[in-house]
Amino acid sequence: MHRSRIGVVLVDHPAESYDDATAFWAAARGSERRGDPSDPDDPYESLDAIAGGIKLELQRTGAGTPARVHLDIETDDVAAEISRVEGLGARVVDHHESWAVLVDPGGLLFCVVPVQTGADFAAHATTWD
Amino acid sequence: MHRSRIGVVLVDHPAESYDDATAFWAAARGSERRGDPSDPDDPYESLDAIAGGIKLELQRTGAGTPARVHLDIETDDVAAEISRVEGLGARVVDHHESWAVLVDPGGLLFCVVPVQTGADFAAHATTWD
Repeated sequence: MHRSRIGVVLVDHPAESYDDATAFWAAARGSERRGDPSDPDDPYESLDAIAGGIKLELQRTGAGTPARVHLDIETDDVAAEISRVEGLGARVVDHHESWAVLVDPGGLLFCVVPVQTGADFAAHATTWD
Repeated sequence: MHRSRIGVVLVDHPAESYDDATAFWAAARGSERRGDPSDPDDPYESLDAIAGGIKLELQRTGAGTPARVHLDIETDDVAAEISRVEGLGARVVDHHESWAVLVDPGGLLFCVVPVQTGADFAAHATTWD
């Protein structure tokens, strides 16, 4: 038995447009920026949570890569969730130590990651047998 | 004065992978499908709302187009919201009668659309002067 939910939306921009785009999305939503975009080892920056809103996170991707949006499925058991969504037609394309990159049946990229949203996850996740 | 929020996430798939991908996302989230994917005039299908979750909608796009995810900013004043985000660096690429397609400063596509989420919008939207 494990739990999961589609909890986080990532906005991915290559290094050259990352800062302008992140400033835009923060202002568009009226959120504060919290990350340190100058840290080369941390390509992620979460915008402040908005009650009842989508948890939005920015990712600085490699130079020349296309801008895109992708979904994260957060879960309390990454291996079990990967097995579940593989059974539904997803395919793993990249295994990391604690998370994985997958594609849906139409080739669209998403990730399965550990819980990102704390109490919000516990309150709203779906339980799978 | 108007209100807006980033309220809806669209998963876009071309006709050839649309049905498999939509079945996948519905099952991955444990949502019912509500649209009629055989209706050529309605390329949108919303998955059932999940309390505290992202409102997820599938769009059947043109054959051969790439699968992608995009964000919708919903608002009670589309023209005012377009002006606001243009002032933040967005650019309109396609005007429709009641909504518009824009790109962020890094060229990432998103839409500004009328309110989609009813009471949820009223409870959580941000007010702009």
